[in-house]
Amino acid sequence: MASDTTIPVGYSMTGGDGPDSYYRNSIFQRAVMEDAMKMVNEGIQETLEFIDPNSLSIADFGCSVGPNTFIAMQHIIEAVGLKYDPSLEFQVFFNDHVNNDFNTLFRNIPFPPQVIFSAGVPGHFHTRVFPKASLHIGYSSYALQWLSRNPDGAADPNSPAWNKDSIYCSGHSPQVVKAYSAQFQRDLEQFLNARAQEIVGGGLLIFTVPGVPDGALCSQNYHGFCYDILGACLLDMVKEGLVSQEKVEAFNIPMYYTPVKELESFLGKNGDFRLERIYAIQSDTLEDLQRRINIEPTIPIVASSATSAVRAFMEEAIKKHVGEEIVDSVFERFTKKFSQNYCQLAEKQTLTNISVILKRKP
Amino acid sequence: MASDTTIPVGYSMTGGDGPDSYYRNSIFQRAVMEDAMKMVNEGIQETLEFIDPNSLSIADFGCSVGPNTFIAMQHIIEAVGLKYDPSLEFQVFFNDHVNNDFNTLFRNIPFPPQVIFSAGVPGHFHTRVFPKASLHIGYSSYALQWLSRNPDGAADPNSPAWNKDSIYCSGHSPQVVKAYSAQFQRDLEQFLNARAQEIVGGGLLIFTVPGVPDGALCSQNYHGFCYDILGACLLDMVKEGLVSQEKVEAFNIPMYYTPVKELESFLGKNGDFRLERIYAIQSDTLEDLQRRINIEPTIPIVASSATSAVRAFMEEAIKKHVGEEIVDSVFERFTKKFSQNYCQLAEKQTLTNISVILKRKP
Repeated sequence: MASDTTIPVGYSMTGGDGPDSYYRNSIFQRAVMEDAMKMVNEGIQETLEFIDPNSLSIADFGCSVGPNTFIAMQHIIEAVGLKYDPSLEFQVFFNDHVNNDFNTLFRNIPFPPQVIFSAGVPGHFHTRVFPKASLHIGYSSYALQWLSRNPDGAADPNSPAWNKDSIYCSGHSPQVVKAYSAQFQRDLEQFLNARAQEIVGGGLLIFTVPGVPDGALCSQNYHGFCYDILGACLLDMVKEGLVSQEKVEAFNIPMYYTPVKELESFLGKNGDFRLERIYAIQSDTLEDLQRRINIEPTIPIVASSATSAVRAFMEEAIKKHVGEEIVDSVFERFTKKFSQNYCQLAEKQTLTNISVILKRKP
Repeated sequence: MASDTTIPVGYSMTGGDGPDSYYRNSIFQRAVMEDAMKMVNEGIQETLEFIDPNSLSIADFGCSVGPNTFIAMQHIIEAVGLKYDPSLEFQVFFNDHVNNDFNTLFRNIPFPPQVIFSAGVPGHFHTRVFPKASLHIGYSSYALQWLSRNPDGAADPNSPAWNKDSIYCSGHSPQVVKAYSAQFQRDLEQFLNARAQEIVGGGLLIFTVPGVPDGALCSQNYHGFCYDILGACLLDMVKEGLVSQEKVEAFNIPMYYTPVKELESFLGKNGDFRLERIYAIQSDTLEDLQRRINIEPTIPIVASSATSAVRAFMEEAIKKHVGEEIVDSVFERFTKKFSQNYCQLAEKQTLTNISVILKRKP
């Protein structure tokens, strides 16, 4: 029997700013954030309310190492600045796991140091990381889809939620989806409960997560396509005797793509925050995204940049739960298989991202 | 003519937690801090006053990588805790240059994460690093003696303040002392002006710096002894043709040991803070210190541990201003010369440390 490999809270994007770093390979997450920000700016203008603080404090939960967090914080500061006294001071808190590369983050902060005051806050955002009523705006982008642990039963052959044939929540097994969804809901509740204590009455909590249209499966979108390829690479390595079958069967990417209505229902159950806005945003197609970031959309480049992007956020999980020595080989295979299956991408849905603005009740 | 090598703001203690790190070689600074804390605790009890905050925020300016900062923050929290509601929450900010190794700092924070909330703040403490009126207690230990730049003329052969024969402010030349003192005063003023904006009325600013008794010279104490040895090693290397004479003549350790009365007079000129307490504390002799940290006081160990201690805070300055390639050789020579001159240590004064409690006027 495969052991239940619970992936613990606290693994980070690839640090530093080298070629495989999250810093250099998070352009997709950036595009998502920029799309969401158009709407979020408007939402901030219309919904934020609080009384005359000396300074306004904003926290990014799950900030990683940048540069996306800087761009997002800049957007929020500009949106708030339009509404308030121009002499208002800002304190921006960057929160992520203690293993996040804060040294790289700090060295790249682009803000004028005596106008926008920056701080790093190490710690798990499913728990309290700030004192009571100390924040005006909480923000999070592409972080809450990460679960704090593996869903119950996902790695247990005796459970109906055993996720034997896939390394992620593809959507094909209702029992697996149920287990992932339940864990997502528990984590979201913990996140909201912690933030409810930290954010002042009238303050905002804004977040973006990847999701699926109601009724759709994760395997139908571009991300699912990548996870399917990654899973297939690992299975090839099992067949070649390079990795044990048990390890791969027990490996589950602790990430959940919530349907829009489900998220709305979970948020409606929370007594501390009022749902002000919820936006379901279709992201660009891969080709559009590449054009936007000035990459010529030819297959070899697509495959290698897709590999770098997936590696930047999956490397640590694979090292930890499948094996450090196989990582390079897994991603070499990924590039090859991605190119071979490229034609299937046309059938895939663009990704749905969900952005939410919640207001802390007084 | 030797160029005026201005040592810029922002060089850090040796990072990581390896054998040469500041983390492992700051036991002296710890002993100083623990001595000061006995008095500081009492001072906090007697002087701190503010009204019912949700949480109390404390910042350590020039925290380095630990562990001393953790012990100091714990002392302050305990002293404050005795006076206030036990449910009071604390937010502790660790401030140091952006090149400080915050990753090591964060990984070693010993506080219970949901009781004492920690944050890192990169930036120069001679400028604002926090929003207006956002701190209740500012603290700094063994950091303000570092000057933000070389004193005017110290590296200029045409200046009366040219510090030709020494690499530090030994006290022998009144013109050199005057230049160092003036820079120290300017830096202290900048530090106080920045903190005056950040600390709430009734809040405290507590700091400890190494000093000299009124009328004494830095060369008469243990630190001066170490700097004289370091300077002699560099001069030996000049004679052997390993380092250029100009480089060594232009190298000045940007550190000033203020006399007690002088510091009191500088602080008296500040209009924002009231001087509540000033303590001049004689530190242990080297032998006492070694006994306290359970090192048998035999010469080889003394010399090697003295070398590690000096290297932990001087390595970066020497790399930058004399040369990276000579660092190992400098400190090998230091160990040898320290042992050879060990007998002179008995004539040296123990170090005077000055601890200060200032209260922000309302």
